[in-house]
Amino acid sequence: MGELLGVAVLGAGHMGADHIRRLDRVVSGARVAAVADLDPARAKDAVAGIDGVLVHTETEAALDAPGVQAVLIASPGPAHEEALLAALARGLPVLCEKPMVPDSAGALRIVEAEARLGRRLTQVGFMRRHDAEYRRLKALLDGGRLGRPLMLHCVHRNVSSPPDFTSAMLIDSSVSHEIDAARWLLGQELTAVSVLRPRPSSGAPQGLLDPQFVVFETDGGALVDVEVFVNCGFGYQVRCEAVCEAGSARIGDDHGMLVTARGDAATEVPRDYLVRFAAAYDREVQSWVDAARRGRVTGPTAWDGYAASAVAEAGVRALESGERVGIALAGRPGLYAGHDD
Amino acid sequence: MGELLGVAVLGAGHMGADHIRRLDRVVSGARVAAVADLDPARAKDAVAGIDGVLVHTETEAALDAPGVQAVLIASPGPAHEEALLAALARGLPVLCEKPMVPDSAGALRIVEAEARLGRRLTQVGFMRRHDAEYRRLKALLDGGRLGRPLMLHCVHRNVSSPPDFTSAMLIDSSVSHEIDAARWLLGQELTAVSVLRPRPSSGAPQGLLDPQFVVFETDGGALVDVEVFVNCGFGYQVRCEAVCEAGSARIGDDHGMLVTARGDAATEVPRDYLVRFAAAYDREVQSWVDAARRGRVTGPTAWDGYAASAVAEAGVRALESGERVGIALAGRPGLYAGHDD
Amino acid sequence: MGELLGVAVLGAGHMGADHIRRLDRVVSGARVAAVADLDPARAKDAVAGIDGVLVHTETEAALDAPGVQAVLIASPGPAHEEALLAALARGLPVLCEKPMVPDSAGALRIVEAEARLGRRLTQVGFMRRHDAEYRRLKALLDGGRLGRPLMLHCVHRNVSSPPDFTSAMLIDSSVSHEIDAARWLLGQELTAVSVLRPRPSSGAPQGLLDPQFVVFETDGGALVDVEVFVNCGFGYQVRCEAVCEAGSARIGDDHGMLVTARGDAATEVPRDYLVRFAAAYDREVQSWVDAARRGRVTGPTAWDGYAASAVAEAGVRALESGERVGIALAGRPGLYAGHDD
Amino acid sequence: MGELLGVAVLGAGHMGADHIRRLDRVVSGARVAAVADLDPARAKDAVAGIDGVLVHTETEAALDAPGVQAVLIASPGPAHEEALLAALARGLPVLCEKPMVPDSAGALRIVEAEARLGRRLTQVGFMRRHDAEYRRLKALLDGGRLGRPLMLHCVHRNVSSPPDFTSAMLIDSSVSHEIDAARWLLGQELTAVSVLRPRPSSGAPQGLLDPQFVVFETDGGALVDVEVFVNCGFGYQVRCEAVCEAGSARIGDDHGMLVTARGDAATEVPRDYLVRFAAAYDREVQSWVDAARRGRVTGPTAWDGYAASAVAEAGVRALESGERVGIALAGRPGLYAGHDD
Repeated sequence: MGELLGVAVLGAGHMGADHIRRLDRVVSGARVAAVADLDPARAKDAVAGIDGVLVHTETEAALDAPGVQAVLIASPGPAHEEALLAALARGLPVLCEKPMVPDSAGALRIVEAEARLGRRLTQVGFMRRHDAEYRRLKALLDGGRLGRPLMLHCVHRNVSSPPDFTSAMLIDSSVSHEIDAARWLLGQELTAVSVLRPRPSSGAPQGLLDPQFVVFETDGGALVDVEVFVNCGFGYQVRCEAVCEAGSARIGDDHGMLVTARGDAATEVPRDYLVRFAAAYDREVQSWVDAARRGRVTGPTAWDGYAASAVAEAGVRALESGERVGIALAGRPGLYAGHDD
Repeated sequence: MGELLGVAVLGAGHMGADHIRRLDRVVSGARVAAVADLDPARAKDAVAGIDGVLVHTETEAALDAPGVQAVLIASPGPAHEEALLAALARGLPVLCEKPMVPDSAGALRIVEAEARLGRRLTQVGFMRRHDAEYRRLKALLDGGRLGRPLMLHCVHRNVSSPPDFTSAMLIDSSVSHEIDAARWLLGQELTAVSVLRPRPSSGAPQGLLDPQFVVFETDGGALVDVEVFVNCGFGYQVRCEAVCEAGSARIGDDHGMLVTARGDAATEVPRDYLVRFAAAYDREVQSWVDAARRGRVTGPTAWDGYAASAVAEAGVRALESGERVGIALAGRPGLYAGHDD
Repeated sequence: MGELLGVAVLGAGHMGADHIRRLDRVVSGARVAAVADLDPARAKDAVAGIDGVLVHTETEAALDAPGVQAVLIASPGPAHEEALLAALARGLPVLCEKPMVPDSAGALRIVEAEARLGRRLTQVGFMRRHDAEYRRLKALLDGGRLGRPLMLHCVHRNVSSPPDFTSAMLIDSSVSHEIDAARWLLGQELTAVSVLRPRPSSGAPQGLLDPQFVVFETDGGALVDVEVFVNCGFGYQVRCEAVCEAGSARIGDDHGMLVTARGDAATEVPRDYLVRFAAAYDREVQSWVDAARRGRVTGPTAWDGYAASAVAEAGVRALESGERVGIALAGRPGLYAGHDD
Repeated sequence: MGELLGVAVLGAGHMGADHIRRLDRVVSGARVAAVADLDPARAKDAVAGIDGVLVHTETEAALDAPGVQAVLIASPGPAHEEALLAALARGLPVLCEKPMVPDSAGALRIVEAEARLGRRLTQVGFMRRHDAEYRRLKALLDGGRLGRPLMLHCVHRNVSSPPDFTSAMLIDSSVSHEIDAARWLLGQELTAVSVLRPRPSSGAPQGLLDPQFVVFETDGGALVDVEVFVNCGFGYQVRCEAVCEAGSARIGDDHGMLVTARGDAATEVPRDYLVRFAAAYDREVQSWVDAARRGRVTGPTAWDGYAASAVAEAGVRALESGERVGIALAGRPGLYAGHDD
């Protein structure tokens, strides 16, 4: 693929540091070219161990640093508008964490700026569109097999909310994921919203309206209801059931998509090992590369390879003879003491 | 992380081409430095679009090509021994597709060569050790909460077998995965094997003993039974249930690991979004990088970002007022016609 | 238990005939003593094969028939009030199909009449209170382990609605089950209701508002939302998830109750065979009694008993010897040709 | 149905007392006419509260008691042969708890006696044939949709074994259920058996070979494997997966039957409420009858009926107006204080 994409990362907090790690060690074809954060010490921590990354305190300086070809915005929401306008002015493609711009007036200014530019440069970080289950649900709905979607029943639960989380943030921080997911899944705009407020859980901080129950209407006549409960205490759950004219499909239950139609409720069985173990293959090769670059070798050993061959040979003899066949391995060299993974 | 790891890939068939794609476009920190295949046209096809990769017909030439620092062996099994010995002779780390060496005598020669070398260079491609469900099962067994494992019940089903698949290959090609997984999960060696042969399915090719039922004994007193059925017709299924002294755990049912202990059967609920959506974040950034390197922008648009802000604002008003609040978006610029993903 | 309870059944339509069959052939300790229906032919059909049941066209005549000790009301809803008052006047215990009385003014008259009487005679036929899953959910909520219930998410789907089903009947016929279930599960009264109307499914009859989404508020601050969809086309589904302060529990997914709490999602494992097979034991003895009363014998035969003994003996020999043991049965008498169930 | 069937119950231990209760209070159309047990005090306890049952110490006396028309044998296994022969001599239909006769020679004598008689009188108490899930599995296999069965994978787990349980009893007491179920499900006879013995669980009593893994072969070329583990500690689990030429079906996972075929894994969705709530209707009427015979009324009250009507009326107004509608109930008479179930 040729040269690596040089990325300037704006913001080196929790999400920013995670994206820096991802660009450096997980994603293929990119490198971190510059980082900007108001706190230079935090930025330096985030790039520790990555060669040749310059750290800045000014957005503009980072965008203009040598080798920068793209921008990942992970700074706090209020800083997004200025950063986006700066990136658009330079023609740089942007991945901007959500919310793109917290207030809709500012968000609309980005839309207008990009529209004036006449070409798309901005991708917003609604990562559910990249989740395997959401994509299966989207593909199912688009395929039309279940007919028109009538309702989405959504659940969004967190163990506990961060300090200073407000009642409004259940909507504009948490439910914003469902807002985007609903628009994307349905291909419709939302036209009205109601929020119901059950008596707050005793597990919620004093004064926080948690849980809430939000109902959206769409321009296609569908309903979207969302239970948002950010102090449920027991785990993180994101569930979505699409109820359609000819069946329903549910994701988020720690199994693949459950499709109910014509008399049964079914999950998909993959067609082959490349589907089932796609991620395992990726991780296998990645871990091998990571180790090799550090001068190490991990994973199944030559001894494991030998043992597998020896056992398989005995198995074939058992198959052919119809008898129980004993297995005797050679002595194990000390190099292979213990089991590795 | 500095310089990319230069990898020579031996074999450009089905698995080899897939690994070439993976090294080039999925894995971080590596590049394809050389490829060898007896069929140079096939090798050229596999590296189409990747700059600066030399194609060879000889293993040794590929290993000695400039920039080669590691070797991935994906050639047919009978060629593995010679390739492994060549890699070991050069001190190159190797990822070798299974079977490492088909016959155990040859496999043992690799073990002995590496033991003489006194350091590990070989990793065998048993990818199940990298599968998320298998790793959860391994961690559970190692954690000791369920006590000593007594039995593994395994199922290995394919839709249909390739042409020329033999009855012995159900053992030495298919069940070889369970052989390694059992050894790894249990940390025990297998000591005996029996193969039972039910009347073959009418869906199996004439003469093929399919399905088979294989029972292994281990040096720790455990049993491992495997149903292998390579023409089951309905899908690819790999299932493993570990029955332990204080509970059982099952993977492979299109949901996460099901743990049965003390009166209930449970699947895990993740603790936060970084766990639940880890892969989605990776895919998000990868797809953005891939598009940017091609000069494109995809994914959620600025319009999507604006719509989310506008809807969330209405939601907060609905929360505060207790009323249904209508949502009116600005006009959508033509740039954002249609929904993207 | 002594004498059988003589029951007068009012109404011999679909539900009435089913209850007559149930009283005669399923329930222990009762007998059908009289039947009343405006259509005497229909009543006669419903009691065909039951000895000594007199058929009436007048409610009062049936209630006064010899041997009547209790009344089961399965006539159309508008006839319930008069029948209930007649039963109360006679001091007879009543099981009344829902709706008890369709209009609340009439229903209140029954309440007042019974209150004047000073003792309960009326049981309303909300059968979900007798469903095993609902009872497990009720017991779980009452036990307090999950804390205070905050929300109930309910789904009520039918394949298709009967002719002449109106938009109001989605509420007062279908959702009436959820109304009772919510009051019973929560131990709270409902205080307000809103109905949202997504664009009707194209599978619904012209003019029917189907599906609907109903949201109730309770005097305990809980919310109850109900998707009612009576032309969903794919099956009958009744689902209820109780979201509580410390966990959630869901019933209706064709498995037992799924309880999500403290990091996992679990279904219960029964503690012994009397729990797991309680219904099987009941059915076994009932089917034997039913056959014996007709002079027949069905079910597993003496041959099955012999075969089980012979196989078990061989199994014990296999256990003791560690060898495969062949099994040879005696010749099967012609009496046992074929397999029975 | 006319007169109740008079049943003599032989044996008033654990199972016998349970069957006496079942005949008296659950099953329709039968009554307990006589009981025999070597311990008359135990027999008297078992029939406490049932009018007119004579207690005997001799089998023959019980069989000859007035009104006896059928025999239920629940005495210890070694007593079965004599009791069965006595019942056959009298032409009485018998339900005999398993094992019919513990030793196969004795069992064969029953077969021969019944064959000489020329008509069936004996039903053996293999209650799994009456379990709803097993019946669904049997119907599926018989229907032929999944093709010929190739293997049954069975699991049979108990929390703990009774005192004095021997290694042989894992086979002839526990696995005897799977022996019958396999013969019934497959319609085939078992022809050979092997027993594998993993190292016993530390949770098993000293000296007990627990778990065991039993493999049967059938005259139709199928395999049946059974994990039997009677001290698993965590619950009672009976599972059976039938692997067929065109799909597999599994029961016993606390959900209905899971059928895997053509690319998905599905559970059935019932077609209507009579299927879903059949047992609830039965229990509803039974509990009403039971209460009425005791002069009591339980279950949903007239107040519940009124509340349902009032809420439904408000719901219809909410539907018609599109507004939230408040609900105000009349004052609740003291008679209805508290919630009943």
